[in-house]
Amino acid sequence: MSSEISAANGNGNCLGWAARDASGVLSPYKFNRRNVQADDVSIKITHCGVCYAEVVWPRNKHGDATYPMVPGHEIVGIVQEVGPNVHRFKVGDHVGVGTYTNSCRDCEYCNDGQEVYCDKGAVFTYNRFDYNGTITHGGFSTFTVVHERYCFKIPEDDYPLASAAPLLCAGITVYAPMMDHKMNQPGKSLGVIGLGGLGHMAVKFGKALGLQVTVFSTSMSKKDEALTLLGADNFVISSNRDQMKALAKSLDFIIDTASGDHPFDEYMSLLKTAGVLVLVGAPSEIKLSPISLIMGKRSITGSATGGTKQIQEMINFCAAHKIYPNIEVVPIQYVNEAIERLINKDVKYRFVVDIENSLK
Amino acid sequence: MSSEISAANGNGNCLGWAARDASGVLSPYKFNRRNVQADDVSIKITHCGVCYAEVVWPRNKHGDATYPMVPGHEIVGIVQEVGPNVHRFKVGDHVGVGTYTNSCRDCEYCNDGQEVYCDKGAVFTYNRFDYNGTITHGGFSTFTVVHERYCFKIPEDDYPLASAAPLLCAGITVYAPMMDHKMNQPGKSLGVIGLGGLGHMAVKFGKALGLQVTVFSTSMSKKDEALTLLGADNFVISSNRDQMKALAKSLDFIIDTASGDHPFDEYMSLLKTAGVLVLVGAPSEIKLSPISLIMGKRSITGSATGGTKQIQEMINFCAAHKIYPNIEVVPIQYVNEAIERLINKDVKYRFVVDIENSLK
Repeated sequence: MSSEISAANGNGNCLGWAARDASGVLSPYKFNRRNVQADDVSIKITHCGVCYAEVVWPRNKHGDATYPMVPGHEIVGIVQEVGPNVHRFKVGDHVGVGTYTNSCRDCEYCNDGQEVYCDKGAVFTYNRFDYNGTITHGGFSTFTVVHERYCFKIPEDDYPLASAAPLLCAGITVYAPMMDHKMNQPGKSLGVIGLGGLGHMAVKFGKALGLQVTVFSTSMSKKDEALTLLGADNFVISSNRDQMKALAKSLDFIIDTASGDHPFDEYMSLLKTAGVLVLVGAPSEIKLSPISLIMGKRSITGSATGGTKQIQEMINFCAAHKIYPNIEVVPIQYVNEAIERLINKDVKYRFVVDIENSLK
Repeated sequence: MSSEISAANGNGNCLGWAARDASGVLSPYKFNRRNVQADDVSIKITHCGVCYAEVVWPRNKHGDATYPMVPGHEIVGIVQEVGPNVHRFKVGDHVGVGTYTNSCRDCEYCNDGQEVYCDKGAVFTYNRFDYNGTITHGGFSTFTVVHERYCFKIPEDDYPLASAAPLLCAGITVYAPMMDHKMNQPGKSLGVIGLGGLGHMAVKFGKALGLQVTVFSTSMSKKDEALTLLGADNFVISSNRDQMKALAKSLDFIIDTASGDHPFDEYMSLLKTAGVLVLVGAPSEIKLSPISLIMGKRSITGSATGGTKQIQEMINFCAAHKIYPNIEVVPIQYVNEAIERLINKDVKYRFVVDIENSLK
């Protein structure tokens, strides 16, 4: 522990881009990563996706920001060093790191491979104090050092590293609840609210699983892409009451990726008896009528990424089914503009920062 | 059908007590029950429970009241006549009728014994138009005529009819979600919000199933009874923050029977990861933070009584485990006062009207 802490307080072995205050604007920042410990993997970062967390946390929307803050939790790269106890990875492997990099490894949930729900609290990849007291820093940086448990294998032959980045948060965030709620049964009907980084992955997973997929959007501009590029079966403008009514009691499951506030009762009415709406976006509040739940024993639930077991399973599923996120690759020098465009929903469908070629 | 309609418009073969307006006050009223059809059972009503529906519907809280309205949907009695196609019942049998008396009998849910979730809408036992256009009337009346599918066998040797009445709504309303969410596994932890007609049955079911039961109440006056009479393991005053905090992440399942408005986030925080809160009461609105759902993939759901399969199963379970609702038996002449006392939570724990001996 003491060697880790002293390393973290050292003179800067790692170059990143950090937010310094609630403006959230990122700029170059030197900090220290710990030395490689027995179970650690050191990863030369090649790419890092831009998640909506990069709006929320650097701008201190939850009031828990610690600056300087190096964001980024859709990390992929190449193993450059491993500790003596590491068995799953070797130098040169393609790997990913997601939204958390530590957990107690001893509780019911850790033991079940659901580390994100760790009893002591999973340590998020950035803006969290790790168990040793150091602050975590994310993937907008040249390299990272992580316990091998929180690293995932990216298939090398057929999965581009840039494309793999968004799987580590956007991908698992929609995949996990689909599996938890048995949406891997062909013929079931899936609704997807919002067609951004998360929503477009939900559509792809849905089609790969043989589901009937309906996309709900506020913008007609997404219709063509939803149906032709992504392969959704149905596209509905959520303000169109007739279209909404026609879908009453027709859906088994809805993934709600909308980050803005919106009504819930009308979506709940689209669920079949015992249907489930899962919230993965972040509206400010949920408000609904008890009748929406009671009359069809419908549920509203939430989900936060997934455990290590499901993350590797999801990556393998994407490779097997040739599911690739639609990405726009940008240099780190563009990251602040990318975040602004993300706020304005001007991205199809995920920015990925080319760390390897732009952060030097 | 035509014979049924004409019978319903006839000159009064049945004496009941009806509400005439939104005051909800009940008084004697003569109306017609249909003649016994091929699949029908005619039941001499002996007892009928008083449910919170008798506050909501006669007082037109949902704006859908049709007067005169004969309430009552926790009906028990003795078979006095059966149609030629009836095989499950014979004259003299003890039977119950619950919250609905018809359904399409042809949809996915009817075919699965979940008639309360019928695609065409289950026909409620009172204040609803049946498929033949007649208005349904409930159990505060001398007899009823019901298709045998919506009748349930009450074991004759060991289950008093008066005690059976509350099973038909209060009992099944808490039993069904407990079974749906696999709370029949000993050692799991159950929270029960509110200790009225529904809540006290949830405690009894919980103990019979080997669960750890915690009762949440606003009133210290219920503590002794919760622990000693009903056998709960733990009693918590919901306004006591320390007691609430001590239970964080400790419960598998919460049954929320509270009919008044109350906060949800603090109860959600008591659930383990993937825990479920089921709403069976009727607050005016549900409001909660998305974090309450997302961080522990917790769910909030609802439930409306249960299908015919589960109702008979629940009655048999009660007989096998000697589970009897705690009741206060009153004559029909007391029913308006009973409803007032129910509003004031002044009942332990269910009023049952002695129809047989008081309605003549």
